[in-house]
Amino acid sequence: MPLVTTDARSPKRWLIGEPLPTEKLDAQLLPKRLALPIFASDPLSSVAYAPQELLLILTLGGLTMLSFAPWVAAAVVLLLLVVVASYRQLVKAYPSGGGDYEVAHRNLGEKAGLVVASALLVDYVMTVTVSVASGVDNIISAIPELHSARVELAVVFVVLLVAVNLRGVAESSKAFALPTYLFIASVLLMIVVGGIRVALGDLPVAESAAYTVEAKDLSQVAIVLLLLRAFASGCSALTGVEAISNGVPAFRTPKIRNAQWTLVLMGGIAIVLFVGVTALALVSRVHYSEDPCALIGWADCATEPQRSVMAQLAAAVFGGDATIMFFVIQAATASVLLLAANTAFNGFPLLGSVLARDGYAPKGLQARGDRLVFSNGVIALGLLAIVLLVVYQANLTQLIQLYIIGVFVSFTLGQAGMVKHWIGVVRSGEASMRSVVWGLAINATGAVFTATVLMIVTVTKFTHGAWLVFAIMPVLYLLMVRVNRYYAKIERELEVDPVTKFGSRGDHAIVLVGRMQKPTLKALDYAIAARHDSLDAVHCSVDDAATDLLEKQWAEMNIRVPLRVVQSPYRGISEPLIAYIRAHREKYGPEVTTVYIPQYIVGHWWERLLHNQKARRIRHKLMLEHGVTVALVPWLLGSSAVITDRKARPLPGQVRRGEPVKPVVRRPLPRSGHKN
Amino acid sequence: MPLVTTDARSPKRWLIGEPLPTEKLDAQLLPKRLALPIFASDPLSSVAYAPQELLLILTLGGLTMLSFAPWVAAAVVLLLLVVVASYRQLVKAYPSGGGDYEVAHRNLGEKAGLVVASALLVDYVMTVTVSVASGVDNIISAIPELHSARVELAVVFVVLLVAVNLRGVAESSKAFALPTYLFIASVLLMIVVGGIRVALGDLPVAESAAYTVEAKDLSQVAIVLLLLRAFASGCSALTGVEAISNGVPAFRTPKIRNAQWTLVLMGGIAIVLFVGVTALALVSRVHYSEDPCALIGWADCATEPQRSVMAQLAAAVFGGDATIMFFVIQAATASVLLLAANTAFNGFPLLGSVLARDGYAPKGLQARGDRLVFSNGVIALGLLAIVLLVVYQANLTQLIQLYIIGVFVSFTLGQAGMVKHWIGVVRSGEASMRSVVWGLAINATGAVFTATVLMIVTVTKFTHGAWLVFAIMPVLYLLMVRVNRYYAKIERELEVDPVTKFGSRGDHAIVLVGRMQKPTLKALDYAIAARHDSLDAVHCSVDDAATDLLEKQWAEMNIRVPLRVVQSPYRGISEPLIAYIRAHREKYGPEVTTVYIPQYIVGHWWERLLHNQKARRIRHKLMLEHGVTVALVPWLLGSSAVITDRKARPLPGQVRRGEPVKPVVRRPLPRSGHKN
Repeated sequence: MPLVTTDARSPKRWLIGEPLPTEKLDAQLLPKRLALPIFASDPLSSVAYAPQELLLILTLGGLTMLSFAPWVAAAVVLLLLVVVASYRQLVKAYPSGGGDYEVAHRNLGEKAGLVVASALLVDYVMTVTVSVASGVDNIISAIPELHSARVELAVVFVVLLVAVNLRGVAESSKAFALPTYLFIASVLLMIVVGGIRVALGDLPVAESAAYTVEAKDLSQVAIVLLLLRAFASGCSALTGVEAISNGVPAFRTPKIRNAQWTLVLMGGIAIVLFVGVTALALVSRVHYSEDPCALIGWADCATEPQRSVMAQLAAAVFGGDATIMFFVIQAATASVLLLAANTAFNGFPLLGSVLARDGYAPKGLQARGDRLVFSNGVIALGLLAIVLLVVYQANLTQLIQLYIIGVFVSFTLGQAGMVKHWIGVVRSGEASMRSVVWGLAINATGAVFTATVLMIVTVTKFTHGAWLVFAIMPVLYLLMVRVNRYYAKIERELEVDPVTKFGSRGDHAIVLVGRMQKPTLKALDYAIAARHDSLDAVHCSVDDAATDLLEKQWAEMNIRVPLRVVQSPYRGISEPLIAYIRAHREKYGPEVTTVYIPQYIVGHWWERLLHNQKARRIRHKLMLEHGVTVALVPWLLGSSAVITDRKARPLPGQVRRGEPVKPVVRRPLPRSGHKN
Repeated sequence: MPLVTTDARSPKRWLIGEPLPTEKLDAQLLPKRLALPIFASDPLSSVAYAPQELLLILTLGGLTMLSFAPWVAAAVVLLLLVVVASYRQLVKAYPSGGGDYEVAHRNLGEKAGLVVASALLVDYVMTVTVSVASGVDNIISAIPELHSARVELAVVFVVLLVAVNLRGVAESSKAFALPTYLFIASVLLMIVVGGIRVALGDLPVAESAAYTVEAKDLSQVAIVLLLLRAFASGCSALTGVEAISNGVPAFRTPKIRNAQWTLVLMGGIAIVLFVGVTALALVSRVHYSEDPCALIGWADCATEPQRSVMAQLAAAVFGGDATIMFFVIQAATASVLLLAANTAFNGFPLLGSVLARDGYAPKGLQARGDRLVFSNGVIALGLLAIVLLVVYQANLTQLIQLYIIGVFVSFTLGQAGMVKHWIGVVRSGEASMRSVVWGLAINATGAVFTATVLMIVTVTKFTHGAWLVFAIMPVLYLLMVRVNRYYAKIERELEVDPVTKFGSRGDHAIVLVGRMQKPTLKALDYAIAARHDSLDAVHCSVDDAATDLLEKQWAEMNIRVPLRVVQSPYRGISEPLIAYIRAHREKYGPEVTTVYIPQYIVGHWWERLLHNQKARRIRHKLMLEHGVTVALVPWLLGSSAVITDRKARPLPGQVRRGEPVKPVVRRPLPRSGHKN
């Protein structure tokens, strides 16, 4: 948070306010070459698991079912096309970064907006768990020795992500772009090499090509259901597509056009990778099963990990699992998946700030710059992800059951909102039916498609674990409604009304004196400077020896403010102090009493545990007392230099909001206690 | 926390302080009939596991080793006698409640004190885990269906204990005494009935009497080692004996004599129960093994839980596991164990306050009445216990390996300190050698015995898991040293010195105005009442419409304080405000600036998440600014009534410190905004 002009000399300048130099701000926004990897790591990384899960579900019905794979994959691609086209419209109509939530909220009402919001909250947790689980899968595929530490590894990665985000790291740094580009490039290379080998008749053969599964005699209904389930799992390729619609403010001008361009490019790459990987998997006959020991012909199924489809393809195409390219593919896949998990840590505060703005989440989330608020969010997200990873033993196939519901709830309501938006535009006469017909058609198609998929996903996944999502979403929904109602109630309570009159009189001040130390003298100094009508120093005595010493020092230093000693039989400070204040008011009539309390300012979080506990307690008690105001007189301890000199660290989600991340330049602050 | 006299009318009375009526305080202290169960639940409950662990270790060497059991048990009883006698001395010499820590600290120096402190901290965690694990064992023995939920059950109990202690519950309530008396009575009854049956020749037969274990041919060295290990595990009967030495202030006068009497009574009961249970177990031939499937003859070892020794005895003596007495014994055992776990939650803050007093722990722990500080301690203790229970799968035998080290470190250093104490007493000439020779002899014996046991325990348990304790204790030790050094450094930093001069001049006040609401008007009202030299209302404009509305309302209400509008280009509040203050100081010279900020007072913890975040952030920024003091003007929201009307809830450890626990009688506070 830049302390904008520490060198502004004129007060007038400040009263008017310095205009924000737009070009300068723009330079800090994302160029397309950085926007693509930042927003695309989530959707592109799903290529690492979507084809695998699609094939896995089909394999449940026997290997013959794999012949349906191209059709299922084609349906996923069609859906991806429709969704990308729909979001192109959405980005244009609502470029403020509110995304599906804003569209649903504005067009379909509060309830729809909150459903989207709760779906997205669930989704952020699932993005972390699924991406980390898949990332660990790919690491284990390269280093099978880690097989037994699957859950531990996943937990370690989440803890790492939490640490990185607590510490603060700019997503816009170039280091974040590298893995995404590396992933795109290496997987494309794999597809091209694989394609060439196929063209030359030298078909790559996967290590699991020889394994078979028990053939099953499925009824027609069962086959359709299995196809639908496979499609539903394949749809995990669509997760993350919505990210750009939340990040339009972060793009450089022309924002909308750049965002749309990035969206289309991302969609194009995603389709190429998804189709390429699925095709290669079919050609090289990867056989991947939910239960490894259902693979007939594989002796080590119980002890060896089943390699991910990505790993099997890389080994098959590049000639074994000892080649450099095999490790490059696995490293790139794992990195891009961890990057995708990281996006949730950035997206979560972004959604929080939008919800806070509308009064559905604590107002504290709205403001920038509160590291504490963000920290809590980061920790909460991390904990939830860890719980899920431990409970589901980092099993990708099981976790993915919980994943897609939220995404498609948000897709469907967002697109439905867009349909309503277009109708509203026409009705209000802002535009003719002709000019919006194309947008309306696209979003209507999107709404119908995503609604259908939502139904399919719900029906096929509900009993496989997705019920949990349907249990949690209403809880989040109600929580947000309650927060909103609470704020409304408080708003009414605080409204200025003609009955409540203000007109206090009387001015009494107290300096709370513990021991004779510099902070006490500073508080006394400030209280004297404020020239109150009457000023007392009050000491609550819990230890006679200490009190005697204080009185002696007081006399020696010749302080003109009278020192009143109050006995504290129960060793508390606030009780006798409050009694003193009440007694004073009884005697001198109602008056506003200002209590001066020294407050230590420290530099490290752990120092807070060691200071101010008593002062805080006394403050809380005093604030309950009628006619009292508490004046905190800061005392900067030496360690506070780390705050005043610290460079600003980026907060999660800052990049996506289009906020500048730059170091704060402060002038060094004078230490306390020095003379004015 | 009694707000002592809300009805005191005379200020003079308060200045002098009301003397504490000693008899009244004494009435709130613990009578012996309550002190016994409160302090004895921990040591007596160890009867539930000490004999079992003793027999279990012997059984490792084959059933023939059980013939040594009487001798091992006799050694434990002898040790118990010595330790009780030693503590009788300690209680008399150091009745302040500091226990072993104080004795070691005063006589052997800081380092010894801190070693004791870190040992005790570890011990509190282990008291919770071991007691809960044993409690769950006994519940499962009565209801074998719960076998598969062992860890979950243990975790639930810890969570329950945490909840109860967060909520606040007076240990002195009679409900806490019941389980201990029930446990003593029912186990005594079991021993008596068992004894009568033995006398009548109708030997009770345990359900595991028929099982054997593989006989082993042990070398003499192995036998000795096994005996020592059995002795070490049996010594868990001694855990908790030290509790009374920490709780002397809680006893009624004559405190020392009452505490000593309770100690001796407790020791006597513990010996009777320990000997009785061990003897019964041998007579009825309970065969208890670390690995249930090492029991030859037991077919269901893999699926059925191995019943605790307590349960097997109850079933054998009272005629089966469907009798009422069987369930009474199990219920009493489980209850007293959970009560013992609860004592750790009370002992922990007690030790914390003593450490804080000496500057080795955050000062915040010293003061009574801060629920937040205690809450953190309770939660930390609960979390650590849960982690251990999960990691060790609530396995009593494994957990007990970590337990006794801490206790005996504390015993040994405490007794060694006492020896030094007696020598010091003689040297200083306070007493003659003859008068202290008895005490010296007892404590010297105690020191030698406990040191020997400490060595045995360390040697026999180190590789069985106790290394962990030796890894954690130094960390705690260093932490405490660091805290101490930190406070010393700060003390020097805060010392009044001749160089730092105070003498600020100038009095400028600012009321921070957001929207036109009642809290703003109250802050303004108080600022006017304080009659500062100059007073401005400052509004940081982030939204032109809102600013226009405010200016209109300001004019309409005809407020005489000038409203200065400051533009906030980056939407922050503190930056433009600070710039305004700096500009004002540039223009008018150095001055003390009082910034009035409304502060919401809320009633529920969750409301804090919804309020004051922005105000807090602004306050923190302002406090870094030179010459600024922040005046918080409280606004009591309706919900704050729950604080002002709330009865005081007891804090963990309050009873043991001898602090009165009684409801606060407050006069109802007027709501904010009413006229003075």
